[in-house]
Amino acid sequence: MTNVVPLDGRRRAPSLDPLLALCADDMARVDREILARLRSPVGLIPEVATHLVGAGGKRMRPLLTVAAARLCGHNGGDDKPVRLATCVEFIHSATLLHDDVVDESALRRGKATANAVWGDKAPVLVGDFLFTRAFELMVEVGSLEILGVLSKASSTIAEGEVLQLVTQRNVSTPEATYLEVIKGKTARLFAAAAEVGAMVAGKTGAERVALESYGESLGIAFQLVDDALDYSGREARLGKTVGDDFREGKITLPLILAFLRGGNVEREFWRRTIERLEQRDGDLAHAQELLERHGAIADTFERARHYGAVARDALGLFPDSPLKAALCEAVEFTIDRAH
Amino acid sequence: MTNVVPLDGRRRAPSLDPLLALCADDMARVDREILARLRSPVGLIPEVATHLVGAGGKRMRPLLTVAAARLCGHNGGDDKPVRLATCVEFIHSATLLHDDVVDESALRRGKATANAVWGDKAPVLVGDFLFTRAFELMVEVGSLEILGVLSKASSTIAEGEVLQLVTQRNVSTPEATYLEVIKGKTARLFAAAAEVGAMVAGKTGAERVALESYGESLGIAFQLVDDALDYSGREARLGKTVGDDFREGKITLPLILAFLRGGNVEREFWRRTIERLEQRDGDLAHAQELLERHGAIADTFERARHYGAVARDALGLFPDSPLKAALCEAVEFTIDRAH
Repeated sequence: MTNVVPLDGRRRAPSLDPLLALCADDMARVDREILARLRSPVGLIPEVATHLVGAGGKRMRPLLTVAAARLCGHNGGDDKPVRLATCVEFIHSATLLHDDVVDESALRRGKATANAVWGDKAPVLVGDFLFTRAFELMVEVGSLEILGVLSKASSTIAEGEVLQLVTQRNVSTPEATYLEVIKGKTARLFAAAAEVGAMVAGKTGAERVALESYGESLGIAFQLVDDALDYSGREARLGKTVGDDFREGKITLPLILAFLRGGNVEREFWRRTIERLEQRDGDLAHAQELLERHGAIADTFERARHYGAVARDALGLFPDSPLKAALCEAVEFTIDRAH
Repeated sequence: MTNVVPLDGRRRAPSLDPLLALCADDMARVDREILARLRSPVGLIPEVATHLVGAGGKRMRPLLTVAAARLCGHNGGDDKPVRLATCVEFIHSATLLHDDVVDESALRRGKATANAVWGDKAPVLVGDFLFTRAFELMVEVGSLEILGVLSKASSTIAEGEVLQLVTQRNVSTPEATYLEVIKGKTARLFAAAAEVGAMVAGKTGAERVALESYGESLGIAFQLVDDALDYSGREARLGKTVGDDFREGKITLPLILAFLRGGNVEREFWRRTIERLEQRDGDLAHAQELLERHGAIADTFERARHYGAVARDALGLFPDSPLKAALCEAVEFTIDRAH
């Protein structure tokens, strides 16, 4: 684990707190904007949406937008970064609502999913509402270029989700395909969130490219770690059940590596449990044992560290500041969380 | 340095020799094919081409083609892998001839470049000859799908070269752009070389994807290491002058990282030496010192190791065999060569 040496000299685990503290005012405005924009004469909409959005979560994506805007010199004089951050969170929330329906998930952030409470129809439609409200917010900000970035990101997410659906339960999915999936479903929105922060602060050159690259690499690292933790994390910290991906037959890097590195008997185990979804008591434990034996979790973290290093270097362009340091620490946190 | 434990138990540095030994017959046929295909009633063509192609080099790309075909079960019963390997070497040679003209290089593989001997015009036109002869060879093999892969690779290489031209001397080129450049100018041909080997052996599914991924990741690692060695290698092993990239103002990852990690005084040094190409005695040594100070060479190797790991895992699909082990060792060799 990488440790951070703060001013008082004591080592502590990397945390998102410095970034949250530096952006606290902006994020309070984002929270108010979220609540305001969820209002609707159709009561079920705020009810379902608040169930998810109100459940908290780390709000990393909108945080990236307001932090990127500040890093690029935005002084908070107008509401545009806050609106774009809200928009980013709505796009993310819409995909979560739809994901949970598609994956038939029952638990998210330690809470029953919307589909577990209301069934599938409401979350599908409320997700659509959030998508369209996100576009309304973008239009209000009034930049066609920013609209271009976020609408492209939205369709890329959808593509990534469909690609994931196509690879589902195919244990011989190549690592390259998995990387395409997570670039689409996760990293693209991280990238766009940071990129539009730069754009709304008037930085359209190297700073915009740097923040896009920071966001994309951070997003890839984030998803890699998420997928490792799904097999190795502690439930209390995850806010979800360990082994969800296994039970759903979702193809993630730990499984891909274990499959590639294992012999025929092991491959038959993966085919039975993942491709045919014939799972018995003890299968998850055996899966975890195989991942451990082949270093699949450790190497997934190793891959994540590569992208973390790329993310940190992308920020090198900016002069040193507490905000830049906090964004670097967010990378460490992403990789070391729940360890 | 990673060491390999051979059967006799002694540790040795990773080498390309096992792969060369296993593919010796095929590569001898490739050599003969190359010489046969260089024949032309216009004497200057074989003269210029043999000057480069005959200079040896490691022939890694055609080696990938014949090795991939063998790994996928091709028994050498027809000449197709040999022809495709020749085609791949011709595409590579054409780009080298053109590169050396564009870069005004005087030395390649320890020998005067074609442009240093004959001036610019002959290598430009002989490069075109090699490109077109490569296409003739592909057509003879008779697979439209393989033609598709190699012609797409050829245009991607050209795109990568142009992108490199555009970034030249721009010290704030983002790492992501550099990665695009090397994916285009180097990794794409490695990927296609391995991919068509699988295709010509009749493997068009997971094996084809795996070998493409192996080739691409190996190619990225190869170029990263090449770019690190340009600042840190030993000339006798490199077969070229240390510091060529510096003198030409070529933007590679070591420089990008040093620029990003350095302060204003250092950035001004890079702007003077790279952007304005105002270089004085001692500048190369100072550049090397800055790279060292910021760990830029070490981290370029670290990035290369990531891609090396991805390349090795891509081969996991194939049953263990001496050939598979030799292809894995080729990855180690690529990263550890000249160390």
